[in-house]
Amino acid sequence: MEEARNIKLTIEYDGTNYHGWQSQKNAVAIQDVIENTITKLTGSGCSLCGCSRTDAGVHAYGQVANFHTFSTIPGDKFSYALNGLLPEDIIVVNSEEVDTRFHARYSAKGKKYKYIIYNSPFPSALLRNRACFVSTPLNFENMLKAAEFFQGKHDFSAFRAAGSSTETTVRTIFDLELAQRDSIIEMDISGDGFLYNMVRIIAGTLIYVGHGKLVPEDMEGIIESRKRGRAGKTAPAQGLYLSKVFY
Amino acid sequence: MEEARNIKLTIEYDGTNYHGWQSQKNAVAIQDVIENTITKLTGSGCSLCGCSRTDAGVHAYGQVANFHTFSTIPGDKFSYALNGLLPEDIIVVNSEEVDTRFHARYSAKGKKYKYIIYNSPFPSALLRNRACFVSTPLNFENMLKAAEFFQGKHDFSAFRAAGSSTETTVRTIFDLELAQRDSIIEMDISGDGFLYNMVRIIAGTLIYVGHGKLVPEDMEGIIESRKRGRAGKTAPAQGLYLSKVFY
Repeated sequence: MEEARNIKLTIEYDGTNYHGWQSQKNAVAIQDVIENTITKLTGSGCSLCGCSRTDAGVHAYGQVANFHTFSTIPGDKFSYALNGLLPEDIIVVNSEEVDTRFHARYSAKGKKYKYIIYNSPFPSALLRNRACFVSTPLNFENMLKAAEFFQGKHDFSAFRAAGSSTETTVRTIFDLELAQRDSIIEMDISGDGFLYNMVRIIAGTLIYVGHGKLVPEDMEGIIESRKRGRAGKTAPAQGLYLSKVFY
Repeated sequence: MEEARNIKLTIEYDGTNYHGWQSQKNAVAIQDVIENTITKLTGSGCSLCGCSRTDAGVHAYGQVANFHTFSTIPGDKFSYALNGLLPEDIIVVNSEEVDTRFHARYSAKGKKYKYIIYNSPFPSALLRNRACFVSTPLNFENMLKAAEFFQGKHDFSAFRAAGSSTETTVRTIFDLELAQRDSIIEMDISGDGFLYNMVRIIAGTLIYVGHGKLVPEDMEGIIESRKRGRAGKTAPAQGLYLSKVFY
């Protein structure tokens, strides 16, 4: 019997209207929409494996997912065919046939996320579902200093959602960059992996630093404490973007 | 009798869900939403005069409007009070009491608009209502050269919607800047005034240049011809933003 082909998709989406990536009862997930579209296109059911199970409201420039199929559609043509059938807020920006052993989640070597903060007295009409709104002024210099403490290999237990469990809590942050432009602060963070809510908790902790509730030098102790209660609040989902997955 | 106070509002909006700025039958306009909110707040009807009658789908970072009221709410407090009642896609970013003679449209000395082009093989999920999507590659260098011809004082008859009428068609472009970053091309254009659809027709003409349908040197002849048919297509509304009004 012929072996199924393995297709890798790179996907951009606006997460506003979905209950996150992963299928769940009584709610429309991005995974469902794409699986149903692949089924419509190929005529057979499909199981799509996404690299990151983004939460409700989280966006992606470069989510990666793969599925196996007996369809004869060339790998690079899936993007065109799917985009003709998908809603406007989900776009397949690239498709290709890959080795059958490729797995969107387990083959990933790292990920990059973006977090956007809108710091202004009033919220933004245009960024209302695209950024975290912070009305009181943030001290950007202190946030920059605090950001340095996250780089490198650490046990990030203090920066994962309470109650979540994973075998190991040690992760390596390759890079954490902060940039300020007018009322917008963007955080770009890449690493070999992220615990549940880790990027949003780091963003929330940097916001605490920006407000003077914490000082940059507190970061070291918070990381060492491994206690979720020591870090800042989990920043809201709508400011988060999965930028890229590294393989 | 006490004289009515004159309140100036600076407004940001996402134009996606509205039929433009100006009130019209059987459609929800941004002007209506704000007028109704002012009426709710002050307890009396109001007539809001906007500087620019932006079309359906056009956005604004800095639309300016004014209205007269006998309300005793301090000028700078209107923004807070209105934002508490307005929908999330319309935000009053500033409010102040101004001279009774101030008129949002007639007092304006100039305006600045932004036009965003997304140039990529596939449309963007996140910019779907926020940019003009162009799938075939644009020659940015040629667009830059063409942009120079628009600066200064010209008769812009070739760059106004066919059938529109105004007393004079001479306008001065203070500045036209183009910037490219990844798949995005942004045009920032400021001038003493703009004819109907002028910014969108200039954007559409620069897209023609980017595609080689016109060369930069054609701009001079098109402007001199004063013929709408010689310029490019009107670029779509969703790429346009009213950035600022000068007084």
